[in-house]
Amino acid sequence: MTIHRFFVGTGVIDEDHATLRGDQAKQIASVLRLGPDDHVIFVRDGTDHEVRLDAVAPSEVRGTVVLRRPNRNEPRIHLTLALPLLRGDRSEEVLEAVTQLGVARVVPFVSERSVSRELSDVKRVRWERIARESAETARRGRIAQISSVVQWPRLFDVLAAPVLVPWEKERELLLLEALDQRSTALAIVIGPEGGLTSDEIEHARERGARTVSLGPRNLRSETAAVAAVAVTIARTGG
Amino acid sequence: MTIHRFFVGTGVIDEDHATLRGDQAKQIASVLRLGPDDHVIFVRDGTDHEVRLDAVAPSEVRGTVVLRRPNRNEPRIHLTLALPLLRGDRSEEVLEAVTQLGVARVVPFVSERSVSRELSDVKRVRWERIARESAETARRGRIAQISSVVQWPRLFDVLAAPVLVPWEKERELLLLEALDQRSTALAIVIGPEGGLTSDEIEHARERGARTVSLGPRNLRSETAAVAAVAVTIARTGG
Repeated sequence: MTIHRFFVGTGVIDEDHATLRGDQAKQIASVLRLGPDDHVIFVRDGTDHEVRLDAVAPSEVRGTVVLRRPNRNEPRIHLTLALPLLRGDRSEEVLEAVTQLGVARVVPFVSERSVSRELSDVKRVRWERIARESAETARRGRIAQISSVVQWPRLFDVLAAPVLVPWEKERELLLLEALDQRSTALAIVIGPEGGLTSDEIEHARERGARTVSLGPRNLRSETAAVAAVAVTIARTGG
Repeated sequence: MTIHRFFVGTGVIDEDHATLRGDQAKQIASVLRLGPDDHVIFVRDGTDHEVRLDAVAPSEVRGTVVLRRPNRNEPRIHLTLALPLLRGDRSEEVLEAVTQLGVARVVPFVSERSVSRELSDVKRVRWERIARESAETARRGRIAQISSVVQWPRLFDVLAAPVLVPWEKERELLLLEALDQRSTALAIVIGPEGGLTSDEIEHARERGARTVSLGPRNLRSETAAVAAVAVTIARTGG
């Protein structure tokens, strides 16, 4: 039986006691129908707190912290994924997969050939929920951060080096070969449906980014994003 | 400008001439609205045939083969993916990604905790279309083969060794470490939503399969499938 996990905000855990209100309390009481003596895990800042429930009501859940341990499921590398806004729900599907796999930060961006150009407030809230729920599913210690949407020219101001850009015209350097096994931080930039223009690639290179290949096959943006993240995290120690 | 690609059946290409009928002719004439002197690529058995169109009608498209070259976009490894039938459209999403990435064969299966247990004829036709369209998008030389649905006990009769099974309780051997860079054939088995049972894992081991880890994070089946395929193809030479 899997113990349910919740990322909790400040003030929930006070020494050995936990007090939870709002939607998460409602979920524990009314959806999961947990009760006194059931255990849950509250996660905060990379620490798992195992909590034995003492009193459960939809308005407030109270419990006792019985075990506190550092979460060991975060990947070794701090990976940032710069992800174009994709049509329909495709960005959400990518987001779910990459936040399970372990990305630390997602930077949504718009470039010349982007089809979708805005992230509405409603969508941003959904993205944040997906990032939290995926981190709970994956038993991670931290939730991936979703940055503000940036335009291509500003993208390299918000990404720390090293930056790798999978590009279909790059034929020499494979992603796997470009990765340093001991890297502790990296940013990967995925192009939109229509690809990145030569001018955009030139700009990226001027800002210190390297282009890499994901192999000879032409991949959709969403497949490229998940594949690049999976390979990077596996290569840098999982 | 991308040249449109089509996997064509027997009899379409005869020496230096090509004659296409049916849905593909209709698509070229009525959807893509190509005409005489436009070029397309007809792919058959690992060979790309560049064809200059001579006469275009929805009932029949005729052209001349101007260039014939071996397709070089197939991965070095012949990779079989045993994929559980997943709920809703999730199998289709996985299928699209992994056939772009380069799997050679997909074996749908049902195991004890499978939620979906049947692949209807309608769905099978859809799967085959996805496999073909993904191979066209990815500019592959071959279409992934979709096998018949098998039950877990029979799965290992239809998979050739070596077989790797990502399993969440395997903590020692990482997939990346289990892969032999020089492998030319491999099968990977992904568990269903509810996971594989200990009995099922025991059966797999008795049949010579090895369990591997995709890392400490708990992944959904569909994320695990795409990640495992991406890592395997990257590791074995792309």
